[in-house]
Amino acid sequence: MAKNLKLKIIPLGGLNEIGKNLTVFEFGNDIVVLDCGMAFPDETMPGIDMVIPDISYLEKHRDKIRGIVLTHGHEDHIGGIPYFLKKINVPIYGTRLTLGLVECKLKEHHLLSKTKLMRVKAGDSVKLGAFRVEFIHTNHSIADAVAIALHTPVGIVLHSGDFKIDTTPIEGGMLDVAKFGELGNKGVLALLSDSTNVERPGYTMSESTVGDTFDDLFRGAFDKRIIVATFASNIHRVQQIINAAYRYNRKVAVSGRSMENVVEVAMNLGYMTVPNGVMISIDEIHKYRPNQLCIITTGSQGETMSALSRMAFSEHRKVEIVPGDMVIVSASPIPGNEKAISTVINELFKKGAEVIYKSLENVHVSGHACQEELKLLISLVKPKFFIPVHGEYRHLMLHAALAERAGIPAKNIALADIGQVIELAHHSIKQTATVPSGVVLIDGLGVGDVGNLVLRDRKHLAEDGIIVVTVTIDKKTGAILCGPEVLSRGFVYVRESEDLMEDAKNAALLALQKCQNKRVKDWVGIKNSLKTAMSDFVYAKTKRKPMILPIIMEL
Amino acid sequence: MAKNLKLKIIPLGGLNEIGKNLTVFEFGNDIVVLDCGMAFPDETMPGIDMVIPDISYLEKHRDKIRGIVLTHGHEDHIGGIPYFLKKINVPIYGTRLTLGLVECKLKEHHLLSKTKLMRVKAGDSVKLGAFRVEFIHTNHSIADAVAIALHTPVGIVLHSGDFKIDTTPIEGGMLDVAKFGELGNKGVLALLSDSTNVERPGYTMSESTVGDTFDDLFRGAFDKRIIVATFASNIHRVQQIINAAYRYNRKVAVSGRSMENVVEVAMNLGYMTVPNGVMISIDEIHKYRPNQLCIITTGSQGETMSALSRMAFSEHRKVEIVPGDMVIVSASPIPGNEKAISTVINELFKKGAEVIYKSLENVHVSGHACQEELKLLISLVKPKFFIPVHGEYRHLMLHAALAERAGIPAKNIALADIGQVIELAHHSIKQTATVPSGVVLIDGLGVGDVGNLVLRDRKHLAEDGIIVVTVTIDKKTGAILCGPEVLSRGFVYVRESEDLMEDAKNAALLALQKCQNKRVKDWVGIKNSLKTAMSDFVYAKTKRKPMILPIIMEL
Repeated sequence: MAKNLKLKIIPLGGLNEIGKNLTVFEFGNDIVVLDCGMAFPDETMPGIDMVIPDISYLEKHRDKIRGIVLTHGHEDHIGGIPYFLKKINVPIYGTRLTLGLVECKLKEHHLLSKTKLMRVKAGDSVKLGAFRVEFIHTNHSIADAVAIALHTPVGIVLHSGDFKIDTTPIEGGMLDVAKFGELGNKGVLALLSDSTNVERPGYTMSESTVGDTFDDLFRGAFDKRIIVATFASNIHRVQQIINAAYRYNRKVAVSGRSMENVVEVAMNLGYMTVPNGVMISIDEIHKYRPNQLCIITTGSQGETMSALSRMAFSEHRKVEIVPGDMVIVSASPIPGNEKAISTVINELFKKGAEVIYKSLENVHVSGHACQEELKLLISLVKPKFFIPVHGEYRHLMLHAALAERAGIPAKNIALADIGQVIELAHHSIKQTATVPSGVVLIDGLGVGDVGNLVLRDRKHLAEDGIIVVTVTIDKKTGAILCGPEVLSRGFVYVRESEDLMEDAKNAALLALQKCQNKRVKDWVGIKNSLKTAMSDFVYAKTKRKPMILPIIMEL
Repeated sequence: MAKNLKLKIIPLGGLNEIGKNLTVFEFGNDIVVLDCGMAFPDETMPGIDMVIPDISYLEKHRDKIRGIVLTHGHEDHIGGIPYFLKKINVPIYGTRLTLGLVECKLKEHHLLSKTKLMRVKAGDSVKLGAFRVEFIHTNHSIADAVAIALHTPVGIVLHSGDFKIDTTPIEGGMLDVAKFGELGNKGVLALLSDSTNVERPGYTMSESTVGDTFDDLFRGAFDKRIIVATFASNIHRVQQIINAAYRYNRKVAVSGRSMENVVEVAMNLGYMTVPNGVMISIDEIHKYRPNQLCIITTGSQGETMSALSRMAFSEHRKVEIVPGDMVIVSASPIPGNEKAISTVINELFKKGAEVIYKSLENVHVSGHACQEELKLLISLVKPKFFIPVHGEYRHLMLHAALAERAGIPAKNIALADIGQVIELAHHSIKQTATVPSGVVLIDGLGVGDVGNLVLRDRKHLAEDGIIVVTVTIDKKTGAILCGPEVLSRGFVYVRESEDLMEDAKNAALLALQKCQNKRVKDWVGIKNSLKTAMSDFVYAKTKRKPMILPIIMEL
């Protein structure tokens, strides 16, 4: 092979951030896209429903794209697919459950019939242009997760996906250590590995330990009704809840749209085994005594509209929390959700429920590898180059330091960012260029029509409100025909601030009169005078800076 | 004593919430107020600077108030004092450091000369009307913290304040276990105790363990400059940082207004011992080599304007973070601050600093008692009645359960809320009535002029923005003279949505014409038509619901 062969790795999401994972692998005329996720908006993005990666680089090179390969079915890995497909229609490769979840999504967006879904299983390889893509079984908080080995002309590049090493998983067996070792022995050029839990020493506990806790809780629940909230996609967790319910003679009902969807998909595809007669509809729960019931629900993150939240605030149409209920929140708060879930837990306690959550019992384990597992993977794979992925900067940084301790020379570790082009050759790694990258905000039907300017206005409006000053003037003379009217929203409680608003009106009038005296007739001049006069007046009176919106109508 | 004597305990803050602690003790014609704190606004209160308790009940009974007694100098216990004093001027009782911090606050509000500050020390008693108030030494994350024993005609009522039991504190000795035991043997009618850490099993680690970590870190820092962020008020923590710096021949500079204030107060009052020549001004740091320096700074919660945040984002005028700096964040994130501090840590890493934080090293311990300490206090005090305070509902609930396990009968435990009147007699505890209570929001100079309606508007504006529709009509005929004009803020990026805004204008025009045709002439009718037409149009096009503000001017 020619020495100047180069593989480009271009992360468009998932580095220096949590979520919207998307990585581009490009060799000559071939591109493979690995995952296509979304991220949740943060507190600087009020009103935004979802964040997806900027894929303008891929739009420009659409003809090169051979397909999207998926590691697993979590939203931060598949949530961006509908928006991607609306711009670029390419085949999607994934395992059975992953594609099952993608199908639900495509149905919603009316894209299912137009999309080529290619089902693979761990162990399979597919040829995509210059790449051979191999799928390797891993453990994670969703079933059917895989790592991806890309066999490229410059060597093998391994992407861990999200993973942990679970020696006693619920189903599917331990991560395919042998395969990783085999690739390691063959020689891996580069490893891209999950950095999420790099701050945590030791090993992540096995999913089956949660089952032991469930068993204890169910055994001790006696005459209580049991309600368990968890991530819908954590099928093994749901399976364990069902197992515990069955063991203690409880029927299982499911609440929450995503939980219903996922359970249906998982059962249809055979990812869950549910003994006959265990599942009942949420409409039937009144037929059973509390100690015959277990309800599995969404809302473990305290999401406002989720089923658990509606139960807590007495807004659920089918389930009312009563004293004697036991509610298990089988999840950890995702950073940023601490307050929301805490509010829900308080409400559940107020309704008289016994609430069991992570701070009190081992009702949750992470799906991501801790330090020892991360080092184990590196030692097994022995990559020449190492690229930490999936994490904020501190995670990538600490993962790089960990890799160094595991024997990778510092010069062979690339700390990258989204939009950076990493060029890999047989013996070199280089960050050469950047391509457009960033966030595309989705707000209602709008994809990308809300940007920084709009967000800045929203922040301003949220913190200080708005004052609108309207005046109608004579086009020729500049005389005030009507107004000024002063209206505010989100500024003060108007009924109790009549004097202030009246004074504000006078300040506006004064500013307009000054303009007349100075014969300022242009809109811009009058608007600016009004704006300044109002800002100054309001700030002097209140030490606040509401947005001032002057509107001048000319007759 | 007559059998019908009754003590009223009325919490006006600190129950079912974190912060703004204020408890009223009322007996006959005497009221003692315990603490007077503020709370930080949560995400539902954009633009709000501070939250204080509603004290209208106290305003109504101002003549009864004998004084405010303070347990310690944290903002959630003293932050509301200036606003309280502006309405009700009463003497304030507190220990030396607590009053030192109150003085700073009063100076800022020009209240110092008008306020009677009564200094006490642990062990002292003062007579306030029917009450004898005894101050008892405790341990907490600020020096000079006390619990309060109120000797009342119905019996002794003990309020723990915020506390932990530190057997090896930095200064001042362990919490006065003997005094608590003595009161317990005498007979305590009721105990109000700190619930903050009730979710945590075991004991809170001693403050001195953090000193050991500092010693390790400073010893291993070699040629690095060390920057430590912590809470300004945690004087013992600051003392330990200074000790470590001195031990390893480093000068100490301080950055951040509150840190400068507190260090000055603490040094003046003798709460910190600093060897001569150790402290330098932040202006002098350029005179020293990195390994001769330690900078103590504010910003351990990632606060946007704090010194650490400014350093991280290269906005600090005196300190620039460079590769080779070691930054220690000696604090835990207060719930809600996780993202902010995480952002700062990422930036520090990006600047090349080594960042040490709670997830990685033991650089922080809590100031609040864990389960074993809480039980120890109950066992020592043996109160007849128990009232968990300082916590959200789940904390109060779990603390009640803990107290029951520690031997207090369930019927003797009161789970209360702010505004509830708890009546204590020799042999009974009853929740009898409620008084006005809640939040007063401070926004700029405004105290209480932003309420739920304004916050609801701010939330609406933040999430969807605003569309203002203005039209000038003929008063008599209802004919449109001018407009409609359609303006938006925080809705869409206008330059890229010209068609949408043009269509919106047409929708407004159509609605106005319909009104004319139907001869609707009243403002309310026209406004409602405009609002509905615009909302429907915008929602159909965007699935968003911006605030619609119709303005009609009449000529």
